Amino acid sequence: MQTPSTDTVRRYRRACDYLAAAMIYLRGNVLLREPLRPEHLKPRLLGHWGTCPGITFVYSGLNGLVRRTGQRTLLVTGPGHGAPAVHANLWLEGTHSVVDPDLTLAELIKGFSWPGGFPSHLSPEVPGVVHEGGELGYALATAFGAALDDPDLLVACIVGDGEAETGPTAGSWHATKFLDPGTCGSVLPVLHLNGSKISSPTIYACMSDEELTDYFRGAGWTPRIVDVRRTDDPDRLLAETLDKAHAELAQRPMILLRSPKGWGLPEDAGGGTFHAHQVPLSAEQLPEIEAWLRSYRPEELFDEDGVPADDLLEVLPPQELRLGRVPQANGGRLRRELPLPELAEFAVDVDEPGSVTASATGTTGEWLAELMRATEQRRDFRIMCPDELASNKLDAVLAATGRAFTWPLTEHSEHMSRDGRVMEVLSEHLCQGWLQGYLLTGRHGLFPCYEAFASIVDSMVNQYAKFLKMAGEVSWRAPVASLNYLLTSEGWRQEHNGYSHQGPGFLNNLLTKKASVTRVYLPPDANTLLVTMRHCLATTDRINLVVAGKNSAPQWLDLAEAERHCRAGAGVWEWASHEDPEVVLACAGGVPTVETLAAAWLLRSQAPGMRVRVVNVVDLLALSTPDRHPHGMSAEDFTACFGEDVPVVFAFHGYPSAVHEVLHGRPDPSRFHVHGYLEEGTTTTPFDLLVSNKMSRYDLAADAVRRTRGDDGVAQELLSRRDALKEYAYREGEDSPEITEWEWSA
Amino acid sequence: MQTPSTDTVRRYRRACDYLAAAMIYLRGNVLLREPLRPEHLKPRLLGHWGTCPGITFVYSGLNGLVRRTGQRTLLVTGPGHGAPAVHANLWLEGTHSVVDPDLTLAELIKGFSWPGGFPSHLSPEVPGVVHEGGELGYALATAFGAALDDPDLLVACIVGDGEAETGPTAGSWHATKFLDPGTCGSVLPVLHLNGSKISSPTIYACMSDEELTDYFRGAGWTPRIVDVRRTDDPDRLLAETLDKAHAELAQRPMILLRSPKGWGLPEDAGGGTFHAHQVPLSAEQLPEIEAWLRSYRPEELFDEDGVPADDLLEVLPPQELRLGRVPQANGGRLRRELPLPELAEFAVDVDEPGSVTASATGTTGEWLAELMRATEQRRDFRIMCPDELASNKLDAVLAATGRAFTWPLTEHSEHMSRDGRVMEVLSEHLCQGWLQGYLLTGRHGLFPCYEAFASIVDSMVNQYAKFLKMAGEVSWRAPVASLNYLLTSEGWRQEHNGYSHQGPGFLNNLLTKKASVTRVYLPPDANTLLVTMRHCLATTDRINLVVAGKNSAPQWLDLAEAERHCRAGAGVWEWASHEDPEVVLACAGGVPTVETLAAAWLLRSQAPGMRVRVVNVVDLLALSTPDRHPHGMSAEDFTACFGEDVPVVFAFHGYPSAVHEVLHGRPDPSRFHVHGYLEEGTTTTPFDLLVSNKMSRYDLAADAVRRTRGDDGVAQELLSRRDALKEYAYREGEDSPEITEWEWSA
Repeated sequence: MQTPSTDTVRRYRRACDYLAAAMIYLRGNVLLREPLRPEHLKPRLLGHWGTCPGITFVYSGLNGLVRRTGQRTLLVTGPGHGAPAVHANLWLEGTHSVVDPDLTLAELIKGFSWPGGFPSHLSPEVPGVVHEGGELGYALATAFGAALDDPDLLVACIVGDGEAETGPTAGSWHATKFLDPGTCGSVLPVLHLNGSKISSPTIYACMSDEELTDYFRGAGWTPRIVDVRRTDDPDRLLAETLDKAHAELAQRPMILLRSPKGWGLPEDAGGGTFHAHQVPLSAEQLPEIEAWLRSYRPEELFDEDGVPADDLLEVLPPQELRLGRVPQANGGRLRRELPLPELAEFAVDVDEPGSVTASATGTTGEWLAELMRATEQRRDFRIMCPDELASNKLDAVLAATGRAFTWPLTEHSEHMSRDGRVMEVLSEHLCQGWLQGYLLTGRHGLFPCYEAFASIVDSMVNQYAKFLKMAGEVSWRAPVASLNYLLTSEGWRQEHNGYSHQGPGFLNNLLTKKASVTRVYLPPDANTLLVTMRHCLATTDRINLVVAGKNSAPQWLDLAEAERHCRAGAGVWEWASHEDPEVVLACAGGVPTVETLAAAWLLRSQAPGMRVRVVNVVDLLALSTPDRHPHGMSAEDFTACFGEDVPVVFAFHGYPSAVHEVLHGRPDPSRFHVHGYLEEGTTTTPFDLLVSNKMSRYDLAADAVRRTRGDDGVAQELLSRRDALKEYAYREGEDSPEITEWEWSA
Repeated sequence: MQTPSTDTVRRYRRACDYLAAAMIYLRGNVLLREPLRPEHLKPRLLGHWGTCPGITFVYSGLNGLVRRTGQRTLLVTGPGHGAPAVHANLWLEGTHSVVDPDLTLAELIKGFSWPGGFPSHLSPEVPGVVHEGGELGYALATAFGAALDDPDLLVACIVGDGEAETGPTAGSWHATKFLDPGTCGSVLPVLHLNGSKISSPTIYACMSDEELTDYFRGAGWTPRIVDVRRTDDPDRLLAETLDKAHAELAQRPMILLRSPKGWGLPEDAGGGTFHAHQVPLSAEQLPEIEAWLRSYRPEELFDEDGVPADDLLEVLPPQELRLGRVPQANGGRLRRELPLPELAEFAVDVDEPGSVTASATGTTGEWLAELMRATEQRRDFRIMCPDELASNKLDAVLAATGRAFTWPLTEHSEHMSRDGRVMEVLSEHLCQGWLQGYLLTGRHGLFPCYEAFASIVDSMVNQYAKFLKMAGEVSWRAPVASLNYLLTSEGWRQEHNGYSHQGPGFLNNLLTKKASVTRVYLPPDANTLLVTMRHCLATTDRINLVVAGKNSAPQWLDLAEAERHCRAGAGVWEWASHEDPEVVLACAGGVPTVETLAAAWLLRSQAPGMRVRVVNVVDLLALSTPDRHPHGMSAEDFTACFGEDVPVVFAFHGYPSAVHEVLHGRPDPSRFHVHGYLEEGTTTTPFDLLVSNKMSRYDLAADAVRRTRGDDGVAQELLSRRDALKEYAYREGEDSPEITEWEWSA
């Protein structure tokens, strides 16, 4: 391929910059073939100019690199508000017409930030995009996730100097230390030092070249500065720098790009200052707008129909390597179904409910280890976890693969390997970003996490849920593997780490998302967790939240029963229930299930003759009405579980409000009396923690008695026994041993 | 003061290390005066040994520095799970006995991680503590917040190398650039390179000295390495390093401390490896436990009553300078009430409801500017904001003070000043951490934020709510100023930034917190926002969430009415209501209030004769029953607003689930039909955004018609008008002008 002159490259950028500016301003006369009149302007001027010229500068530099090297390259654009620049490039490279052959240039320009058109930020509607960049901070982690296990891929990542101030981005620079050059692609960050944010200077732009170089070298990069103000030919400087970077990918190159904010906007219109961040000239400044737009001389770049001059296209890579068309950006097309191991050999034998104990996550860990082995050649399954895999009792996986790490190790490290497919870092943000990048490029993964600290990524999952929702509305996007959370080390068993480690609110946050995207499972034992995990790892386009225990706990269902129970989502546990119940004891979650069955057992002796039904809920959203959630049980099934008018004492794993919320729309929800986490906690015994939150078996049993028989002394007796055991815990520093004993066979 | 020998310092550390280990293991025989027997061990061994010796090493080094210099020093301990070390130091320095004169050493040791005793992590029950360190990532930001506006204070901050991996910590290193040496104290970080996390090596421990030095020098620090394995006398090395650091605080010194994990634990018991992280020896290893504990020779350090040898106390600073007693750690004692300006001169004149428009935040910005002026000398009020003060229309404040920044500025920067009291950084984590440190040391502040991005600090506010709840149960903690959020740039007006900027879920998360801590206000106009802000800034020990608009919008209440309305929390707007209503139109939030009044107005013409009542809710938790929240309205007041059996069409600012949740426990909540944000959004017109979420005036009016009169054609007619206007928006790219017109006088 012939190398275009930098003059041509500059003309190409002029065309892109013009189109980007036109997208912000114009609804008509989009190529300025006639004098600009007020009616040509959009009535609402929406968009962000400041970052656009820099994005195009990088995009066009990457075009050159790809032309010269044939390097397949995915671009992750952190400043998603620079969407006009990306659209301009996609238009010129012809990618827009691949996904929408009918789109005209005039429609693209008018339709930007216009109802029914393209949003003002990058989004799943835009080809080539795996990252929105609306909420800032996650571009770099996403880029690393995309590069994992794809050795031929280069992931270029533009990081704005605003975004660079975020904690998640600052932490992501160290991700170099997890990327194995042998099995993974490379990440080439371009830190775009644009000078200012919305209205003040950025930290990184205020740092000296020396400070920047020290900082990034210390973090493991080989930084190179491209300062467009200190060269006559920025395109050539960038091209040379990219070539050097590409030649030494093993040295982890990165580019520090200094350019004026809103580069190309006249200085008296705010060019080079924060005033260029958004829409620099208002509609009242029509002559200034026209002068600025005409400074790009669009008539030299496009013919009357908007067809670009031939030479502009010389700068582009071959069709299949154009940035917007890299297959990884529509990763669902690359996704293959996982070879999920059969469950039978991993399942716990349960002859009788409660007769054996096991660790739910420990059991699933063995199965996940087998999945790791089954994907050893494919390398399309990873586990991202904040340094807690062993603590979460999933460490069987480490027999099948190591923890990825490429830096020199400290003494006495165990289970580390450069090409390991477990990613452990004490940053939930990094785990989430990595996994998003990995999934959106066609792979599979799991994010096990301490329950309380999943909330650290609340806002990231908010944004990812939005991405999935929008992607689902885009015809050409293929489904990607679901984002699977396995929350364990749950609050009820964080009695040792104390109050800070007790927080089930991640679940509540997920409930605010679109029903099409969200699933919430609370498998009560090991076999139900196995069945749930197998299901989740086979699904696409969802966010599956699974909450399960890690501690040794009673087992209730054998594998066949677990399959049936999980399929139903919720059901009556007949073996613990009477016919024609006066009260339903419902439960969701491992610990609440134990307490509920213990309460039912207590009632057999303490309230003889009381007819109790036990209902267990695995799929929380089965409680929703079918019109609110696709998993919602029919009215008939709901009644079959919960009756029509009996009181329901519901022991719930998390905040009671989550159950109130999902029950909304069911008739008479006020008969559901939900026990759950009341934000009472400290370092104490597990039993005391339950008592503090009115969730112990005694509290549940007493509530059942009161709801059915009034306060007849039996409830008081139950609560006295509770208090005596609580006293014992305080005195002896341990749970009373007998409270975990029962015999369901009786 | 005489300088103790480093032998004595070493003996002091031996005593602390012994006590810390004893806290993890012993319930009896706490000084090992007799042979160790199984019954001396706690039945549940809970605690984290790995970081303890390092914490004591730093603590004792700081003791020396304070002795030598008289420097008032606050210690922020990032690894809160190293609580035993802090307790040991507090015990020896006599601080424990200041707050609890009856506590014996045996009780402290037994009571650690024991029901009713001290939690396993640092917490508000511990003197000297302004940071829990349970959820990792925020110690450094908190330390900076504590140092602001306190020029005589040194804030030492231990950052664990696990914590250092978090994004928020990585971003916090740049906070140097915001700390004005003239008006603020200093932060001295000690990055504790302990080698490993729970079970794998840490990133920072694997970096070479050169990488670490480059990285931190680049970030603006002067790093010095203290490697305890490369010296015969670590205490002297630390003392010398601390002295150098203290002599050059202007150069932003920091210490890189390399020490073996679990320093002092025999290697064959896991010393120096990740196995030392938590409880290194199990109860079965009684002889090994005893041998290890006896290696500290407690009999040389304490007499039979646990009184420490005299020489140990020589290492301590004078009483009033001991780390646990620094007044800033119980900042409520230092807090002074703010000189809140009168509202009258800032209030908007509202002769008639809806007759004028104003920006709520713009109005409040002028009042906040006056508050900035009133606190210019005191310097105890700051605004932390992620680069959005101007965008949130609070920029009047910048006429009264600048944005703090100490690094060389980029050209064309505006409103920057070294001693400014606005802190703008594109990191919600930093804003939150700074503010927490500032409040807990006795000052006041406000956190204005784009609504959607407040969720970035969901987990931080979770932890802070826990801190406030626990602090409220500690008798010696004085109340601190409330943490005030002002969420604006709310989703309904993020039609231009699009879907990623539309997210009201921060409110839902707050609703899961303790009622004693949480308040949620949705002032519908400028004067109600003024009244709300004045109230919030006068309160203590709460998390006040205020959601208000920034855009120019109709004003409803004059100042006197606003005062009454806010005091009541919710009320009937009589001027928009009929007697004996068939339906209540309720609303909470600025945009929903406009739509509701417009709906009421529409119904006057479209459904003549229909009797409608308009109720506005400012204080969301007034909807709760009084037993669930202290702000809950009485049943009588609730009925006075919402009637007993009429349908209520409720237009809510956020997710409908939040209203369902607060209404829980009210009779017949199913008559409340809540409209709110349904996660439908993109870049479009404000009107279309409302329509997508069924929240437009037409949707509300149609719902009211259907609930009262069935589907009689009027509802259809309303929805047809809605659809025509929506069409107009798509065609013209703007809201139809007439839909904002009405005259309440009619």
